[in-house]
Amino acid sequence: MTDVIDVNQIKEILEDFAGRRDWNKFHNPKNLAMALAGEAGELLEIFQWLSETDAATAGDVAEIKENTSLELADILLYAIRLAARLNINLSDAIQRKIIINNEKYPVEKVKGSAKKYREY
Amino acid sequence: MTDVIDVNQIKEILEDFAGRRDWNKFHNPKNLAMALAGEAGELLEIFQWLSETDAATAGDVAEIKENTSLELADILLYAIRLAARLNINLSDAIQRKIIINNEKYPVEKVKGSAKKYREY
Amino acid sequence: MTDVIDVNQIKEILEDFAGRRDWNKFHNPKNLAMALAGEAGELLEIFQWLSETDAATAGDVAEIKENTSLELADILLYAIRLAARLNINLSDAIQRKIIINNEKYPVEKVKGSAKKYREY
Amino acid sequence: MTDVIDVNQIKEILEDFAGRRDWNKFHNPKNLAMALAGEAGELLEIFQWLSETDAATAGDVAEIKENTSLELADILLYAIRLAARLNINLSDAIQRKIIINNEKYPVEKVKGSAKKYREY
Repeated sequence: MTDVIDVNQIKEILEDFAGRRDWNKFHNPKNLAMALAGEAGELLEIFQWLSETDAATAGDVAEIKENTSLELADILLYAIRLAARLNINLSDAIQRKIIINNEKYPVEKVKGSAKKYREY
Repeated sequence: MTDVIDVNQIKEILEDFAGRRDWNKFHNPKNLAMALAGEAGELLEIFQWLSETDAATAGDVAEIKENTSLELADILLYAIRLAARLNINLSDAIQRKIIINNEKYPVEKVKGSAKKYREY
Repeated sequence: MTDVIDVNQIKEILEDFAGRRDWNKFHNPKNLAMALAGEAGELLEIFQWLSETDAATAGDVAEIKENTSLELADILLYAIRLAARLNINLSDAIQRKIIINNEKYPVEKVKGSAKKYREY
Repeated sequence: MTDVIDVNQIKEILEDFAGRRDWNKFHNPKNLAMALAGEAGELLEIFQWLSETDAATAGDVAEIKENTSLELADILLYAIRLAARLNINLSDAIQRKIIINNEKYPVEKVKGSAKKYREY
């Protein structure tokens, strides 16, 4: 099933959403960073009391899957709104970060190493 | 400039990245939620001591823009990895959340209202 | 007005609180760290849309002061509970951290320097 | 071993620490809330890749115990600094929150109930 995020389109939708509510004044990058982190806190609340085993199969529980979907959506929407405010190209940032991670964690050095992973 | 995130492609890249390092065992959904929130904490650190005025123009400061880009990329990568683990379609979740927000915050009721916004 | 936290007393109260509800099984240190971070996210939500000016005088607004009090209490309670689980002496840790900070940020080097502070 | 936090004393130490570095201008309550949440993010990073079993015995690992001690100290120091700025009495807030929690989660209703606990 296709799953493609057109970031520029979402940026426009969010700009229109905020503009029509006179909310642009609230969308300082600092405030958006806080809002994103607040949503990340809500994501934690979904998983915090689950055992490791229950968390591993959380995708099979409709309520958890749906709650997680909507929290991730909140996080992505704030990420996109913040990117719009700072003129950041998200797909470009993602591609660059993947390359950085590949160089930072060479397979031969970190494979099976929990210690190295703790520094990830 | 085009900015499109092919979520399924990134899911595959991350699966391959983790698999080759024997890191799948660490990628329990609970752990991924924690890692995402940890990156959100690093995003906060970029903006926490900036004045409102400096934060508003942070996009003009190359170092801040670059640091924010890479933190947002970290957040998105963990969001995509978590979505992969729970079989979540992110673009679908985003579209649904936009509709929910439109219904939850009718323009005529919330326009210019800081109070309503605090409940956002 | 006196303001003294008897950490050992609170540790006992929380142990009793959890024990009587059969909740000790949920209080793995990892889960407690998540719960603390979730409460920190709720603290953010109090301040995220406030202007710098409104935030500076937030202590004069009874509702904000009360909400902040209770969020800080939640955070401290989880911190104390986590300290209990890891056998950590919090007042000792605080005293040591104050000394570390004094050595890390010598007055003559960092005074008035936003740059140094950003690394704080 | 005694473990008592004299909040007023720490408030004075922190006021002096910030004053001598000309950092009071950075200590807006909003900024302090962000700094506290950032430290909570660092706390998460200590535990995020630990298995449930390893997390349960984390207190026996000197490095983890020490790292956790210092992160909790950072969190408490920001909590105390924020309380100073909003004129909040922390021990009073803690006592009130304990009463609220006792009333909110009656033993007979929540004992052994994971569902109730998830709403905690």
